[in-house]
Amino acid sequence: MTLSLGSAVLDAIETKKFGGELSEDLIRDVVEGYTAGEVPDYQMASLLMAIFIHGMDYEETLTLTRAMAESGKTYSFPECVDKHSTGGGGNKVSRTALPIAAACGAPVAKLSGRGLGTTGGTIDKLESIPGFSFDLSEERFSRQVEEVGIAIIEAGDLAPADKEIYALRDTTGTVDSLPLIGSSIVSKKAATGAGHLLYDVKRGSGAFMRTTEEARELADLLVRLSEDLGIEASALITAMDNPLGSAVGNALEVRESVRLLKNEPVPGDLTDEVNYVATRLLELKGIPDADSAVEDALTSGAAYEKFREFVRAQGGNAAALEDLPVSAEVNEVKSPRDGYVARFAASGIGSAALALGAGRAKKGDKVDPGSGIEVLVRIGDPIQKDQPIARLYGEREAERAEQLVLEALEISDEPVEPPPAILDSL
Amino acid sequence: MTLSLGSAVLDAIETKKFGGELSEDLIRDVVEGYTAGEVPDYQMASLLMAIFIHGMDYEETLTLTRAMAESGKTYSFPECVDKHSTGGGGNKVSRTALPIAAACGAPVAKLSGRGLGTTGGTIDKLESIPGFSFDLSEERFSRQVEEVGIAIIEAGDLAPADKEIYALRDTTGTVDSLPLIGSSIVSKKAATGAGHLLYDVKRGSGAFMRTTEEARELADLLVRLSEDLGIEASALITAMDNPLGSAVGNALEVRESVRLLKNEPVPGDLTDEVNYVATRLLELKGIPDADSAVEDALTSGAAYEKFREFVRAQGGNAAALEDLPVSAEVNEVKSPRDGYVARFAASGIGSAALALGAGRAKKGDKVDPGSGIEVLVRIGDPIQKDQPIARLYGEREAERAEQLVLEALEISDEPVEPPPAILDSL
Repeated sequence: MTLSLGSAVLDAIETKKFGGELSEDLIRDVVEGYTAGEVPDYQMASLLMAIFIHGMDYEETLTLTRAMAESGKTYSFPECVDKHSTGGGGNKVSRTALPIAAACGAPVAKLSGRGLGTTGGTIDKLESIPGFSFDLSEERFSRQVEEVGIAIIEAGDLAPADKEIYALRDTTGTVDSLPLIGSSIVSKKAATGAGHLLYDVKRGSGAFMRTTEEARELADLLVRLSEDLGIEASALITAMDNPLGSAVGNALEVRESVRLLKNEPVPGDLTDEVNYVATRLLELKGIPDADSAVEDALTSGAAYEKFREFVRAQGGNAAALEDLPVSAEVNEVKSPRDGYVARFAASGIGSAALALGAGRAKKGDKVDPGSGIEVLVRIGDPIQKDQPIARLYGEREAERAEQLVLEALEISDEPVEPPPAILDSL
Repeated sequence: MTLSLGSAVLDAIETKKFGGELSEDLIRDVVEGYTAGEVPDYQMASLLMAIFIHGMDYEETLTLTRAMAESGKTYSFPECVDKHSTGGGGNKVSRTALPIAAACGAPVAKLSGRGLGTTGGTIDKLESIPGFSFDLSEERFSRQVEEVGIAIIEAGDLAPADKEIYALRDTTGTVDSLPLIGSSIVSKKAATGAGHLLYDVKRGSGAFMRTTEEARELADLLVRLSEDLGIEASALITAMDNPLGSAVGNALEVRESVRLLKNEPVPGDLTDEVNYVATRLLELKGIPDADSAVEDALTSGAAYEKFREFVRAQGGNAAALEDLPVSAEVNEVKSPRDGYVARFAASGIGSAALALGAGRAKKGDKVDPGSGIEVLVRIGDPIQKDQPIARLYGEREAERAEQLVLEALEISDEPVEPPPAILDSL
């Protein structure tokens, strides 16, 4: 440390407000001081706005990423693969593709967060399996990674500096900054320590990355930062607001994953993307003939067997997987008119699932694991008036959920071309 | 109010971070929300940095000025004249020129602040007069303005929004912004309600206005904002770091003022500037033959008599003015070598006076009214080794004060041209 932590932030503000470059020492002192509570929120907010407007060059961004990654406990699993989705909504693919990768010899050590958005996180989904627990000791977690090839625990205090800075950015208009987004994402992933990382960058209306070009810029940055922190990385770009598969909810999504892993029919867009991601993960790990390895794992039953092994290892009842309980209260939503599905916004469907009890609106809310939504039509499908478009599971706020689902649906009079699942990759 | 106060600041941040223009409603809501404590410091800090970097146009600046002026109690003395110095150090001139203006028929209603800088404010100076009190009722204050033509009270909660925003700017690197400086100064003056205002804009190393050009830019803005708020205004530009006259301290400065008002000799630079300012104040008020009116007031004794009348009206012992007590502990500082005085920094002399007890380092510190400094040489003077350059009054930290005085002195081997007191005016 070269400066008192208190004066470091003022130095940083003076430098960045005129567009100057922050030194490595300055960035480290500011991150350390803010995490220690010595730098007040209002000074950090001032610095973040200066960074928002004047940007940071690559070296500054890399230093910030490293400083935030090292602000708490760090892990190291250089042999493992992982996938990260920006902007939410891609976890369904991860949860299904990672067991396939594990079945093909690419170990997975995943540190996951509890959901606080429209639908629950990976932890909420897997907790819909009776007995399943994330409460493993670190020793048991590492042993399970070695012996089973896949283990998931709840991420505790990973990159606490990022967590605090993100909370401040969220309330000070400084979220949508490329260097701040990039350093935030990569700092957390670097702390989890997987050696091979596939990023799924979402392009969509709600995210900073509104165009494929912007999404590619972020993907480039994520890969470059990761590589410079010793992680082998690549990325794909997908559309944010197209729902994949048909299930939204906890038990409903696990059931859909199980069907896919058992090689049973699920909507083709989900199968395609899961297979693509599993293949990319194997390639990152350097496993030859990745394509056919993935196909073999699915047709031979090895993928599903690996998933059952993983569930059992974490205390879950694998026998229950075939028929996880869902809510008995089911309501169908019907199309208001004839036409073609032009849009069925994942964000709106997610909000509807939240209203039914599938996620948390705020910390501490209780999740109903059997609630959720089955989406019955896909973009491009011709539909008729009164044709069922979605099935709602759950007894909370069912009317509001129906309203939200109807608002998420756009019907066109003209035929609609279904969008590609994967927009680009690098 | 058009928006909830909480969301107004977020709207303002979103607009200003991309360089957009803030609407009148938005500015008013943000100022109101921040003053009411509904907008947190960190959001205001983010907005201030966005304003710092992207600036504000004139309309935005005027709206902010008006909103801050109206955030607390406002006064109205449309007949009165006042002078305001930016950056401190000009109050000695004001305190002497205002009684002269009052003697010439330009009434003065002054709302003044207690000093918190290197030397005390006007209130500390005048409190060195036995019995003098600023504790007048508003009614008595107004009556004294009418009957005596000059009255001063301590400013209470003038423009509280500006006070809070300034405190935040001071700790978030957002002080040196022209629109923020201009709106801060004029909001306070608008709240005090004088109808005729002369600004003394300081150009100098410590201030934002490092060049005469920058000082002129601020002077232009102050005059334009004031005029648009119904105040007749003009401005002069002076050098910040050249001490005027010879006295620094409370009783010492009042004694110097008394000598000048009695038409007794004081250093010529002070006499020149006081006369110039008094003349400008009369001109602002539209009093004809201002030049000779000022001269008459001084030679006839009317100026000093007006000052005594003012002191008596506020409970002070006018008889004591002739010989206000100063500290008996006097130390002379001597020149370390031969040469010419190239610089004798007012800021350094002020710090030395503070060390001797003439001001407050922090709120609540007790001021020693008899302490201070007499400056014995002026810029351009030839000096010899061991010639006395200053006289220190007071028993606190005399050694440190001597050190500070020596550090403030720069000696040149070549002759030095004394700087002009007034650099420009508009």
